[in-house]
Amino acid sequence: MPDMMKPTLTSICEQLEAFAKARDWDQYHSPKNIAMALSVEAAELVEIFQWKTEAESAALNPQDQLAARHEIADVFLYLLTISRVLNIDILQAAQEKLELNAQKYPVVKSKGNAKKYDRLDD
Amino acid sequence: MPDMMKPTLTSICEQLEAFAKARDWDQYHSPKNIAMALSVEAAELVEIFQWKTEAESAALNPQDQLAARHEIADVFLYLLTISRVLNIDILQAAQEKLELNAQKYPVVKSKGNAKKYDRLDD
Amino acid sequence: MPDMMKPTLTSICEQLEAFAKARDWDQYHSPKNIAMALSVEAAELVEIFQWKTEAESAALNPQDQLAARHEIADVFLYLLTISRVLNIDILQAAQEKLELNAQKYPVVKSKGNAKKYDRLDD
Amino acid sequence: MPDMMKPTLTSICEQLEAFAKARDWDQYHSPKNIAMALSVEAAELVEIFQWKTEAESAALNPQDQLAARHEIADVFLYLLTISRVLNIDILQAAQEKLELNAQKYPVVKSKGNAKKYDRLDD
Repeated sequence: MPDMMKPTLTSICEQLEAFAKARDWDQYHSPKNIAMALSVEAAELVEIFQWKTEAESAALNPQDQLAARHEIADVFLYLLTISRVLNIDILQAAQEKLELNAQKYPVVKSKGNAKKYDRLDD
Repeated sequence: MPDMMKPTLTSICEQLEAFAKARDWDQYHSPKNIAMALSVEAAELVEIFQWKTEAESAALNPQDQLAARHEIADVFLYLLTISRVLNIDILQAAQEKLELNAQKYPVVKSKGNAKKYDRLDD
Repeated sequence: MPDMMKPTLTSICEQLEAFAKARDWDQYHSPKNIAMALSVEAAELVEIFQWKTEAESAALNPQDQLAARHEIADVFLYLLTISRVLNIDILQAAQEKLELNAQKYPVVKSKGNAKKYDRLDD
Repeated sequence: MPDMMKPTLTSICEQLEAFAKARDWDQYHSPKNIAMALSVEAAELVEIFQWKTEAESAALNPQDQLAARHEIADVFLYLLTISRVLNIDILQAAQEKLELNAQKYPVVKSKGNAKKYDRLDD
């Protein structure tokens, strides 16, 4: 596909919505059901890594790399679907969360440790 | 924030990477660990809906709507992080998956039912 | 198998431990890895129900009933394994949690509603 | 509690059922909902380990050990509940799965590797 046809977040969202509508799938797409489906796809992503060491997880063979690519796409598509049905702008929501996280995890306290925000002063 | 400052997928990814680097968090960000963290956030999204009916899940009160917004953002941020560390273009991956799904779930067989692709002919 | 051979929690635990030892699998069985595997099996259980209504989920066809039986067993076997490697008596842990839950969810406040304990007075 | 009062699988199941009935909670306990709740508890168990190394996950501090104990109990209680509502004998189901696993993972092929059964001959 020529460069001018590169997918954008908007083009993905539009295709995804058209896909569900063409199949009358919105009847199954309650937020409850989509959240479940999203968590199942997240688990399929986890499954790729579960018996690998952390180092192995960062050096996937081509078969596992492709599987990870597919599972990441599956999670993403459900995430865009639940955002649509809940009328949430996912970019705005992410921007807000980044700003909240910057407050919860100040660099001076969080540099080089992975403590949860409520234990930063332990 | 003025309209010209609306977040984009690129601006979110850049901030997210800078956030991790400023805190030296890439050491924790093996694909294995991020996949786990992503699945935990997906479960926190599920938790909002678990005792609700499907109808109730589509009519959230403001407190639950905000919680869902935050959890969707959390899943999204981990999804962008794992895509970065695995060097996956999430939009291209989504485009490919949409095309695969169109083959697996032809409209004529999938309209109005939620059968898995391998049971479409049952 | 004759009735005197009915499996017990003890006999299951013994077989499970022998199974892992015969395959040298304890090297993979860090609590981190088992927790991941357990969550993946839990998701496979969820997958059976995700597009069903609640009523449908209570009236499974024989194929789905058998699938649920297998997934429940899988979760159980990992739960016993993580209990073993963390040296936790699962029956004692369950007894303690039942007693904690009885305090957190007093009958008078929880009868007929599914509110989380920290919202019982909302 | 005196030793004669040690909890058994039967005594846990009886208390658990009485607990739900006293609170009229069976109305929320469709298999779909319980499976969701179980997966959420499994994720809370995962959360304890997500930023730990495998070695750290095997040497928990007392606070994390207690948290793991509680989450294991939570998963177990939902597992017993879903078994009850689906009318599944969890010990029999586990026994059957152990026997299936022994066929799928013969010692001679599985010793010292964690390959999935469908890749044992790779």
